[in-house]
This record gives sequence, structure tokens and C-alpha cells, in this order.
Amino acid sequence: GTRKKTQDPPIEHELFVSLEEIATGATKKMKISRKVLNSDNRSTRIEDKVLTIDIKPGWKQGTKITFPREGDQTPTTIPADIVFIIKDKPHPTFRRDGSDIIYTAKITLREALCGTIINVPTLDPSRVRKLQSNDIIKPTTEKRLTGDGLPNTKQPSIRGDIVVKFDIKFPDTISRDQRDMMAQILRN
Amino acid sequence: GTRKKTQDPPIEHELFVSLEEIATGATKKMKISRKVLNSDNRSTRIEDKVLTIDIKPGWKQGTKITFPREGDQTPTTIPADIVFIIKDKPHPTFRRDGSDIIYTAKITLREALCGTIINVPTLDPSRVRKLQSNDIIKPTTEKRLTGDGLPNTKQPSIRGDIVVKFDIKFPDTISRDQRDMMAQILRN
Repeated sequence: GTRKKTQDPPIEHELFVSLEEIATGATKKMKISRKVLNSDNRSTRIEDKVLTIDIKPGWKQGTKITFPREGDQTPTTIPADIVFIIKDKPHPTFRRDGSDIIYTAKITLREALCGTIINVPTLDPSRVRKLQSNDIIKPTTEKRLTGDGLPNTKQPSIRGDIVVKFDIKFPDTISRDQRDMMAQILRN
Repeated sequence: GTRKKTQDPPIEHELFVSLEEIATGATKKMKISRKVLNSDNRSTRIEDKVLTIDIKPGWKQGTKITFPREGDQTPTTIPADIVFIIKDKPHPTFRRDGSDIIYTAKITLREALCGTIINVPTLDPSRVRKLQSNDIIKPTTEKRLTGDGLPNTKQPSIRGDIVVKFDIKFPDTISRDQRDMMAQILRN
């Protein structure tokens, strides 16, 4: 017949990418299996195919990469598009916030009040940034280490920041003496 | 014609309700304006109507109350249903979490470390609960005051809790002397 063929709806796959891969860009090879029409235009065989995805530095979650008509072939329809959707792979150390990455430093109350030097990791395992604090660090304090975040998609030479947040560990108990002295010091 | 009439899609309105109203139950009167068919079954007039909503204690956000066929009348369609959807009116003091309400107490670092008594308000303006703390309050500490939360919808005599969280205000600065003493006390 000469009826117009309709296309199957797109087949979507999530593609989890690490922050390190987003930082540098990466190439992912995804193997798919699909039905391919034989030359009789009726029977099909299964074929494997490798689709190559070129992940650009700074790509955001939700970015879609479409491979047109790579779905199953049938005699009567147009094969579906295959779509990969970029997702952030959960990172053990960092959380993403746009082109910034968030690092939560665990410090003691003593360090928060009396000062400390924190070794802040970056996405480059060979690089650590030192953050010196002489002021009081409050639970809401944030410090920015510029230029070690993720690249801007349009201008990869421009990078976001590492935003350092603080998880301040309080002592579990203090003695009566300690408490009295503390009350004196923090009288104001 | 004898063609079957179709119904217009439901008309949804958000209905903002305070936590105090959820706690006790309340009656809301909502005035709507609607087109009503005249006796000629063709021309319409505008009529106001008051819909009464009986809010039961403990109702959750998203609860829907439907008034069937209270939308505009037309010669050719079935009037739409009018639907009210319960929303929490933002509260200056409390946040809702199921049948619990969350209260964030602002305390100083001194109070967090040395103990304090906090006056915790309730949804009943005439009632305050005293919360005594002799232990260290950490930024993650939560304390429960049972029975002053919101009623359970099915059994209004059962109520949730007030969950007290803490926002610990650190000093902005400390002197070098204070810092040295603090470092001594918090050595462990």
C-alpha cells in the first residue's frame, strides 16, 4: 500500500555521567540491539550497533542526544528515534549546582570558632586547594574557591566555582567546668 | 438535536487554609459567579452563588472538594464541576510536615552549649510549652513536644507533634583571648 508510514514514539534512555566526565568532556559508546529488516522487506534479524555520544564539557542534566530512526525496523512503520538523556551520576564528594560544585567540609566546633586550614579536593585528583579560615565559621557560612567548578558549555575556558559549605560537629557532652567557662567566654 | 451533551473540564481553584484552621476545622464560604440559562433555554444571565466548604480537622494539602456541575450553563454542554484544592497558607511560625508542625527555635551558641529554656508557641495562642535543655544542642538536634501538632483526619483526637529544630546563632567575632580559652576548653 501507499499509506503514509507513522513513526514509533522515541525510545529514551538515561545516561549517567560523572562530574569528572562533565568537567573534561568524554566519549561514551552505547551498544543497542535492534531489529533490522531483511532484503525481503518482511522478515527481520537482530543486529547490534554501537552509538557514540560525544559529551561536551559542562553539559547539564537533561541534555538530550537524539539518534534518528535507530529503533526497530518493521515493514509498516518508521523506526523510532533513540534518545539519550544526560543524568548526573551521584558523586561521593561533590554535589552540582549549575556550573558550581558544592563541597561540604566536616569541621569541629573548635575549628569553626578558633580557625582552621581545610584541604578542599577538586575534580582533578592531583589537585587540592587549601582554604584558610581565621574568622568564625557559622553553620550558614559559604566560601567560594573560584575557577575549579564545571566549564561553561558555550565557553569551556570559563569555569564555575567550588562552593564550600560547613558541617560543624559539636561535642557530645561537656563537663560542668567546661560549661561554666564556656558560659563566661560566650557571655556577650 | 438529541446528540449527547459533553461536560466542560473541571474548573479548579486553590483554597488557602491556615494551620490554625486545619487544627480546629473551619467553614469557608466561596462566592462564585456563573452563567445560568434562562427559561428560553438559550439566553443566559449571571448569577452569584455561595459554595460552603466544611474543612475537617487535619485535612492535608491537595485535598479536593468537588461541587458537581456548578460551572456556566450553556444550551449545548453539561456545566463543569467546580473543584477547590486545599493548600497550606504559609505560616509565620510553623511549617507543616504531615500531622507534625515544625518550629525552628533561634538560640545562641551559648544556649546551645550551656543549656536553656525555650518557650515554644503552639497553634493555640493561649498555650506555650516550655522546653528545657540541659544537654548540648547540635545543629541537627530535634526535640518533639508530643500532642500539639495537627489532628489525624480519621481520628481527630490523635494529634501529631511539634518538632523543634534549632537555628544556632554563632558570635560574629571573638577576641584572641576568648579564642585561646575556647581552644583550651574544646581541646578534646
